[in-house]
Amino acid sequence: MNILIIGGDGYLGWPQSMYLSKQGHRVCIVDNLARRAWDLGCGTSSLTPIWMLPERVALWKDLTGGVIEAVVGDILDYDFLAEVMSRFSPDAIVHFGEQRSAPYSMIDREHAVQTQTNNVVGTLNLLYATKEFCPDAHLVKLGTMGEYGTPNIDIEEGFIEITHNGRKDVLPYPKQPGSFYHLSKVHDSHNIMFACKTWGIRSTDLNQGIVYGVKTAETALHDGLATRFDYDGVWGTVLNRYCVEAAIGRPLTVYGEGGQTRGFLDIRDTLRCIELAILKPPRAGEYRVFNQFTEQFSILDLAHLVQRIGAHKDLDVTVDHLPDPRVEQEHHYYLARHTKLLDLGLVPHNLSDVLLDSIMDVVIRCRERVIEETLLPQVNWRSTRNPSSYSKSGSPSAEPIEMELQAAHKAATR
Amino acid sequence: MNILIIGGDGYLGWPQSMYLSKQGHRVCIVDNLARRAWDLGCGTSSLTPIWMLPERVALWKDLTGGVIEAVVGDILDYDFLAEVMSRFSPDAIVHFGEQRSAPYSMIDREHAVQTQTNNVVGTLNLLYATKEFCPDAHLVKLGTMGEYGTPNIDIEEGFIEITHNGRKDVLPYPKQPGSFYHLSKVHDSHNIMFACKTWGIRSTDLNQGIVYGVKTAETALHDGLATRFDYDGVWGTVLNRYCVEAAIGRPLTVYGEGGQTRGFLDIRDTLRCIELAILKPPRAGEYRVFNQFTEQFSILDLAHLVQRIGAHKDLDVTVDHLPDPRVEQEHHYYLARHTKLLDLGLVPHNLSDVLLDSIMDVVIRCRERVIEETLLPQVNWRSTRNPSSYSKSGSPSAEPIEMELQAAHKAATR
Repeated sequence: MNILIIGGDGYLGWPQSMYLSKQGHRVCIVDNLARRAWDLGCGTSSLTPIWMLPERVALWKDLTGGVIEAVVGDILDYDFLAEVMSRFSPDAIVHFGEQRSAPYSMIDREHAVQTQTNNVVGTLNLLYATKEFCPDAHLVKLGTMGEYGTPNIDIEEGFIEITHNGRKDVLPYPKQPGSFYHLSKVHDSHNIMFACKTWGIRSTDLNQGIVYGVKTAETALHDGLATRFDYDGVWGTVLNRYCVEAAIGRPLTVYGEGGQTRGFLDIRDTLRCIELAILKPPRAGEYRVFNQFTEQFSILDLAHLVQRIGAHKDLDVTVDHLPDPRVEQEHHYYLARHTKLLDLGLVPHNLSDVLLDSIMDVVIRCRERVIEETLLPQVNWRSTRNPSSYSKSGSPSAEPIEMELQAAHKAATR
Repeated sequence: MNILIIGGDGYLGWPQSMYLSKQGHRVCIVDNLARRAWDLGCGTSSLTPIWMLPERVALWKDLTGGVIEAVVGDILDYDFLAEVMSRFSPDAIVHFGEQRSAPYSMIDREHAVQTQTNNVVGTLNLLYATKEFCPDAHLVKLGTMGEYGTPNIDIEEGFIEITHNGRKDVLPYPKQPGSFYHLSKVHDSHNIMFACKTWGIRSTDLNQGIVYGVKTAETALHDGLATRFDYDGVWGTVLNRYCVEAAIGRPLTVYGEGGQTRGFLDIRDTLRCIELAILKPPRAGEYRVFNQFTEQFSILDLAHLVQRIGAHKDLDVTVDHLPDPRVEQEHHYYLARHTKLLDLGLVPHNLSDVLLDSIMDVVIRCRERVIEETLLPQVNWRSTRNPSSYSKSGSPSAEPIEMELQAAHKAATR
């Protein structure tokens, strides 16, 4: 199959591209390299050193003979996207190309607007380009489990049957997202559902949990094929941050009481889930939703897991409870359905001591690259800022986070 | 109270501004006059002649002594918005300032993107400016009944109690909007709900039905205070279009079989509903939703009403069924709750023969201004276009609708 990977330079996009190339598909990466610019702006950086995209693509070819095309450009530029879609004729389009950090979207108004504009308009462009150039192609869109929030009833996969005043219907599952980033994915979901119904195109929306791990059969071939490992307060996910904190002898930073429960999955399961979705596309006009995670943990559960593994490695790991920078429930009911991908054949890799041990090894090997100042939360949901020449205090505009983080970065690398 | 009316130059914003000014409130209009530009682009025009905003504001002062401030500017420009909000210090902000035509949003990709960007970013800016400059102010946001679509169960006011697998929660009512415009309102609703919860600001989301009528106590004072009357295929609502068709001796254009059922209300009830919402604001942090309509009709019911009134006026009114340019159910269950505004004291003006008769009189008086070519649907949901230099046929880009409509306009006015 011809498979277009939007955002193929990123944490998941790159391993996904290699994985599908290895299965014999023709893979083309599209990426605007925005994340690299955002990293510079935030003073953050992958723990693992990352080769530039053309070098990785060349290395992949040297090592395996596999050809991955790579095009640098922005899907917000419709003429660019139209050219790629009409030339490459994808059978499937995997869309990783969104701003995907909740804290980044909550820095201030500009970052909120940037996140929603980038994500919503990018997906609108993909929908129009699919309709125009490859109406039979299958759009595989990365959503997030965070679209659902934490309702007091079981979370279903995209839709729920509701009986109300004696009548019944199957309706989109109600959404209660918790950041402007998560909101952008809810907006996408509604737009995609409408486009499928109206134009007869087909899409799978993968409401993904939090992914952990960096090692796949393909990244393991050579250090130069490594994918990024984010651990900081803006881009890092909770388990990665804990591992880094443990490795450098700092307390684990649990936000609030730590009862926040979320779905998680191994990076290898992400790759397989997307392959499964591609191999069994929806019918024309169908919009389907899979919940893409394998296990659920509270963030305090994960802290205790990391403490236990740390003990094996003679690390003295303590746990700190910080005031939660987010607005979210610290204790809540959580039960989310996730059977549709299992039905398609997914065999999950569960989070084991062995796996966590191997992640810790990666982290310990790279620990001199940690930028400590970026570990603590930089962004508070309640005080998200509005840099403006009309700020209430009459004082000059608040410095955007970029400035502060760059200063922290400089201090750290001095 | 200090009341800011965003979009105060428009069909509802203008009468609302006069109405609230008359009640003794301090009213400030903000408008970017975008609709006037879009009219030029589409070759459409109000049936009723409309004075320019500064002339109307001056006339209002001459006639009543009431002072309405008017500021021309775009809320997408945050510095402009910040200046207005900090200077005027509103107690309530009524947000009419969105692109509000479903067909316009479905013209092509550019109009879809423009609609969603304008509406979503405008509302995001208002939320941030409210948080920053007047966190106690009440944001009264115009939503639409079209956010709900046509589910097979009763439509509630914003939220629904769901019992599922033995557990219970009150959750946002599932949304199934039917155009990129309606989708933009759903996106707004999600963003506003989040901002209220996260920042403690307060908002009322008014999911309004289709408004008819142009005569209010204030517009009736002088022809120069008239508000616009849209009847064309892009901006006109169904009842207005029928009245114009009847007045010029053309068949009424029913889309499809005509079983599409929607909520409707008299323009005077809109003014009163918004006043009621302002007088009884939600508590800090509360996001509440009212369904703002008074009666429901199918579009075929309305055609028959217009036929009956036409007969009184010796007009021979026939009914044509056009292929539905939209993707929607032509027969469906529809029962939508709308009790919250009645509980606050609304006394509805129902659609009566007398009222319809008075609308017909306005239309007949202005019928030489009708641009006939704009009556038929110009935009098809299924074939929404993608002007692009890479269009599939290899032929030059499709002409945007603006060009065609301008040509039609020229032909009509020759």
